[in-house]
Amino acid sequence: MSRKIRMGMVGGGRGAFIGGVHRIAAAIDQQIELVCGAFSSNPEKSRLSGKDFFLPSDRVYGSYEEMMTKEKALPEGERMDFVSIVTPNHVHFGPAKLALENGFHVVCDKPVTFSVDEARILKKLVDETGLIFALTHNYTGYPMVKQARAMIAGGEIGKIRKVAVEYSQGWLATKVEDSDQKQASWRTDPAKSGMGGAMGDIGTHAENLAEYVTGLKITEVCAELTSFVPGRRLDDDANILLRFEKGARGVLHCSQIAVGEENSLNIRIWGETGGLEWHQMEPNTLLVKSLEDPTVRYRTGVGQLSPVAQAAQRIPAGHPEGYLEAFANIYKNFASCVRARLEETEPDELRRDFPSIDDGLRGMIFVEKVVENSKGEVKWTKL
Amino acid sequence: MSRKIRMGMVGGGRGAFIGGVHRIAAAIDQQIELVCGAFSSNPEKSRLSGKDFFLPSDRVYGSYEEMMTKEKALPEGERMDFVSIVTPNHVHFGPAKLALENGFHVVCDKPVTFSVDEARILKKLVDETGLIFALTHNYTGYPMVKQARAMIAGGEIGKIRKVAVEYSQGWLATKVEDSDQKQASWRTDPAKSGMGGAMGDIGTHAENLAEYVTGLKITEVCAELTSFVPGRRLDDDANILLRFEKGARGVLHCSQIAVGEENSLNIRIWGETGGLEWHQMEPNTLLVKSLEDPTVRYRTGVGQLSPVAQAAQRIPAGHPEGYLEAFANIYKNFASCVRARLEETEPDELRRDFPSIDDGLRGMIFVEKVVENSKGEVKWTKL
Amino acid sequence: MSRKIRMGMVGGGRGAFIGGVHRIAAAIDQQIELVCGAFSSNPEKSRLSGKDFFLPSDRVYGSYEEMMTKEKALPEGERMDFVSIVTPNHVHFGPAKLALENGFHVVCDKPVTFSVDEARILKKLVDETGLIFALTHNYTGYPMVKQARAMIAGGEIGKIRKVAVEYSQGWLATKVEDSDQKQASWRTDPAKSGMGGAMGDIGTHAENLAEYVTGLKITEVCAELTSFVPGRRLDDDANILLRFEKGARGVLHCSQIAVGEENSLNIRIWGETGGLEWHQMEPNTLLVKSLEDPTVRYRTGVGQLSPVAQAAQRIPAGHPEGYLEAFANIYKNFASCVRARLEETEPDELRRDFPSIDDGLRGMIFVEKVVENSKGEVKWTKL
Amino acid sequence: MSRKIRMGMVGGGRGAFIGGVHRIAAAIDQQIELVCGAFSSNPEKSRLSGKDFFLPSDRVYGSYEEMMTKEKALPEGERMDFVSIVTPNHVHFGPAKLALENGFHVVCDKPVTFSVDEARILKKLVDETGLIFALTHNYTGYPMVKQARAMIAGGEIGKIRKVAVEYSQGWLATKVEDSDQKQASWRTDPAKSGMGGAMGDIGTHAENLAEYVTGLKITEVCAELTSFVPGRRLDDDANILLRFEKGARGVLHCSQIAVGEENSLNIRIWGETGGLEWHQMEPNTLLVKSLEDPTVRYRTGVGQLSPVAQAAQRIPAGHPEGYLEAFANIYKNFASCVRARLEETEPDELRRDFPSIDDGLRGMIFVEKVVENSKGEVKWTKL
Repeated sequence: MSRKIRMGMVGGGRGAFIGGVHRIAAAIDQQIELVCGAFSSNPEKSRLSGKDFFLPSDRVYGSYEEMMTKEKALPEGERMDFVSIVTPNHVHFGPAKLALENGFHVVCDKPVTFSVDEARILKKLVDETGLIFALTHNYTGYPMVKQARAMIAGGEIGKIRKVAVEYSQGWLATKVEDSDQKQASWRTDPAKSGMGGAMGDIGTHAENLAEYVTGLKITEVCAELTSFVPGRRLDDDANILLRFEKGARGVLHCSQIAVGEENSLNIRIWGETGGLEWHQMEPNTLLVKSLEDPTVRYRTGVGQLSPVAQAAQRIPAGHPEGYLEAFANIYKNFASCVRARLEETEPDELRRDFPSIDDGLRGMIFVEKVVENSKGEVKWTKL
Repeated sequence: MSRKIRMGMVGGGRGAFIGGVHRIAAAIDQQIELVCGAFSSNPEKSRLSGKDFFLPSDRVYGSYEEMMTKEKALPEGERMDFVSIVTPNHVHFGPAKLALENGFHVVCDKPVTFSVDEARILKKLVDETGLIFALTHNYTGYPMVKQARAMIAGGEIGKIRKVAVEYSQGWLATKVEDSDQKQASWRTDPAKSGMGGAMGDIGTHAENLAEYVTGLKITEVCAELTSFVPGRRLDDDANILLRFEKGARGVLHCSQIAVGEENSLNIRIWGETGGLEWHQMEPNTLLVKSLEDPTVRYRTGVGQLSPVAQAAQRIPAGHPEGYLEAFANIYKNFASCVRARLEETEPDELRRDFPSIDDGLRGMIFVEKVVENSKGEVKWTKL
Repeated sequence: MSRKIRMGMVGGGRGAFIGGVHRIAAAIDQQIELVCGAFSSNPEKSRLSGKDFFLPSDRVYGSYEEMMTKEKALPEGERMDFVSIVTPNHVHFGPAKLALENGFHVVCDKPVTFSVDEARILKKLVDETGLIFALTHNYTGYPMVKQARAMIAGGEIGKIRKVAVEYSQGWLATKVEDSDQKQASWRTDPAKSGMGGAMGDIGTHAENLAEYVTGLKITEVCAELTSFVPGRRLDDDANILLRFEKGARGVLHCSQIAVGEENSLNIRIWGETGGLEWHQMEPNTLLVKSLEDPTVRYRTGVGQLSPVAQAAQRIPAGHPEGYLEAFANIYKNFASCVRARLEETEPDELRRDFPSIDDGLRGMIFVEKVVENSKGEVKWTKL
Repeated sequence: MSRKIRMGMVGGGRGAFIGGVHRIAAAIDQQIELVCGAFSSNPEKSRLSGKDFFLPSDRVYGSYEEMMTKEKALPEGERMDFVSIVTPNHVHFGPAKLALENGFHVVCDKPVTFSVDEARILKKLVDETGLIFALTHNYTGYPMVKQARAMIAGGEIGKIRKVAVEYSQGWLATKVEDSDQKQASWRTDPAKSGMGGAMGDIGTHAENLAEYVTGLKITEVCAELTSFVPGRRLDDDANILLRFEKGARGVLHCSQIAVGEENSLNIRIWGETGGLEWHQMEPNTLLVKSLEDPTVRYRTGVGQLSPVAQAAQRIPAGHPEGYLEAFANIYKNFASCVRARLEETEPDELRRDFPSIDDGLRGMIFVEKVVENSKGEVKWTKL
């Protein structure tokens, strides 16, 4: 099948942030082309955005409903293969459901939905339709995150004892939502963001990273969420004690009022015989610790890494690949799976590695339980 | 008064660790001389140790009780001025009490006593006698820690919102107490260490650092202590949510099973308008963060630091001073206060800056409440 | 003009390295589409490569000569707008000259040609035709490099005194050219690489970076080139003293036998009142030093950066952009200039910022003079 | 012999810098006591300084000549064992010569003398008398420097190919010698400092470090020295190409006008099969690089280090030891050798490891040849 995979986009018009990221991520590996979009709930804005992306005007739609209907009506050689949903949280469910119901594969930004119930419905639909669904927990796209996961799965640090995961940002340290900051305003609005503020926006990334790398599920949480900025309606800070399967313990803290922090997601894991440390802002380094020997500084592209890490890298060591490339790894693997489906083959096992609807549902449950625990007097809440 | 201050030591004989640190710390600034000691509960070992330190045999004692009595009987121009107590935790109280009762100033290793009750008795004695009592929470001796405290006190990062403090070590990741490791064996023995394992040994340092730097007291804790190593009787890991005065929140985690960690004490504090970050293993750097500007890398000896930071530094920028120098800063300030007392003057205000019996008592209460909370089902325990 | 800019590629077929980088760099910003190529001097390999890139077979050519002729014959609405040349050094001149002669703009990998004479011919052609020529000295595409240049141009560190620039790699520490390593074999072959080995491959990047950032020309060199690996015919290591215009001094060293180094290009510049430091492997940080104050850690996306740095960034602070994005900045700016030409407008001044044929010629002269100096007994050789 | 080794000091009175460093370094390990001194050429200042150090007034001398004579006349059980010379460069030779002639061992600050001729005379005296002479090239006292040396000697990185050594400071970037800065004024005065400015002060440290770590002698230099600050009479910046024995090449650059640099001495060495990297400002880390594997971060106190590195360390990993401890290692080893001499035994082999008069002479020759080369037109000057 000698053609690129065809993407339609929902959201991501002029002034959006994450939509642009998705378009770059989809473009990097040249396996996907943007063929259509409903880029805004404002049809005129959608139209102008489509022009920015050099799309023919008849493939730029005024609503996602219109897009689904009209694309479905196009001949197979022409219509989009999948939908990329890059709207605010409360507008994930609608287009995702409609896409699945109309036979389109889906890439969806996180958190997957506005509520746990919506996530459950989507999961059911994905299971029933067998369509491919990728959730952009993009930080697991980094080669060194994959290396960490592979090493733990291979027993290289022994049974996991402790996890410390953190996601600190400072951009919401003042009440920027009162200014004209579009990114801040919907994220701090319970009607658009959901029950979690920082929790939904970045806490779920931390949770997903911890579970992905360790291969362990979080079983109980004890949390304190805070809204530090006066007048803010959702949490902008969280400190959480974690219990994992198999007796592992941990701590997760995230914040959007951590003044001066850019995008500091980091994780450390200690097992019985070793430890791992990774920082998103220096993503091509993985520190590997052991009981008796000095720490080894694993690097993307250096030495014998796991196949899954190697497959997530494009250029030689020392040529830093960053956020966009990690994000692109989700699109790359997703596109491989879509291509395999179209060609009626099986995708390479390494390419099945991207976050799924199950990760989305877990994230929603995590937020729900953390919020519940934080409001109550009970010490531990089970997930 | 043209002479050095005279130190007698309790503990710290051959094979000890922290005793040697205290002797170096006392020696560095050449204001203190070791004149006598009861270096071991084993008189022969005490005698041999005294010889190592070039002491005359009549100033090497078989017990601390003997030392107190005999030194007290010496003429003022000859006898020790203060006692340095460097024994395991359960042998702090006895010599400290006796020293105070006999009119000797005291330097004591931390945690100050075995139990809260003992700490209260010592506090009463210190208050009654007016003697000088220094507790070696040595990490607050670093210039950049003092700089951080001064900046926060001066309002440079605004009202404190969040504190993340960590103390991770890996040396107890296996059951080293079963081997002949003297340092491990008493620290993991509830009869010698007290109710806290890692909590008493390093958790109190983290607590003390957080309160010293922020100037805020911890008011409530929610904790999970774990003994990961099978058969170990005390905690070797702790994850704790913190509430501070004035609405600040925080997280403290410490561990002695964090494989590959050397001595990773670090703290980050975020206020309404700025943030601070300090790592003990790179102690001459303090990162100063702000709402709009790039992070500034404060360094010992560079630019206009606070007087208290400058006073804690001996040599120019870029000539790293480390753990021993920070430890020596406690002895230096303590010795200045003792000298002022002997000379019947007032010490320089900058020299009053060392941890006191109050810090010791707070540390004991902190451990007690954390242990209590960890064992129960109550979410928050007040200090 | 609502369409993407059309790129034809020379070289970069299966098994190549830099061709893939160019394709990603061109794709990232979605302003350029690959429409044709002569991907290999082997027509069958070219054909297969074209298929990999989903090109129609009639736009995949067996030679660059064929490509130029046939593309030129296509109607304006269809034919390529520019040629991207990604072949080994000795095959830059031919296609570049032919492209210019046939009215195509050019992106060319560095070093620009095999010899200084060839570079002079190309410069003459560029000047005569007025066509747009970009040389991919990609490291100047990083936002923090542009920030450094802007700060120096703005006098923020005063008159330049000293430059230390380094480019260390270790991948040629053994005789990998004897194995089947395609990248190594042509780079160490004087018939393909030119008179410089490491000098041409990476030394020119260091030279270009130094001149770009400081705005000063190198005027004299004193060099020692070495071929450490037995049997290697070109230098794999260089140590060079530099004299710049206006009395600045410097040192440049580069190596491909620096075992364990990945791709360590870095530069430090000291002026009368400040200093700057940048490392390619941590590209989003720029250290800014001053006489009295602590060092400030400038970061991509943080605080008030220069317009040229801001224009080189796609996503917020802390979301690391790396090598491919910096490379893409050359394509982005080049594409803006091509688009302006097609639309008969003037490009934004910020978009004129990419390396030119003049940089290419300077690089060739630099290599020539360094090689000459290294072979002789004269201390200083003028450029 | 149950007593401390007795030190007399020449120089280092009130207002001095390096004298205080020597006193701390001698005090740290409690093997040495200061018993007398001629702390200043001004007798009153010497007297006051002696009082600061709690010395009896009859052991504080008005000149070093007086000190030598009077100490020699004291009974063996009382007189000093060695002299520590901490004066400016031009006052090293006089007291060193007199000390050796009177049978006293010597510790001398670097560079060893004012001229090569003086250094030759001292070497002859040391050889003839058999007295112990230590030169405080203190940077080789760091555990990780010793580890590097041991690894290279053990062949762990193969035959050395390249050395990059740097010593950058910024404190002389302006004409501070015109203010009342005592440290700056003698260092920039050819009558006190000698023929080298930065070269003598810090360039010799870099040279000594390179030769110590690699075990290779520098055989040829090609240098450019510059005095950037108008009116300064000695070099404040140097860029030097190096040739070593056995075909190794290198570059050494040092500066005292590198604005914002504190005390950045660092070295990297690449051999045929590995590489090493060490930075004085983070002295407890040694990066160990290899052909195929990721870089290993050796740390003081972690894993199986060489005996010589272990012997240079006092406290466990992660408790940073710094500049003063490294300096103290010279005194510690020197004191062990003096003690062995007094006790008529042989010192532990590990304790013979400190810089000698030979290192001093080499340093002087290095400065002389660098200055000569820099002034001439000859490319390479042999040492």
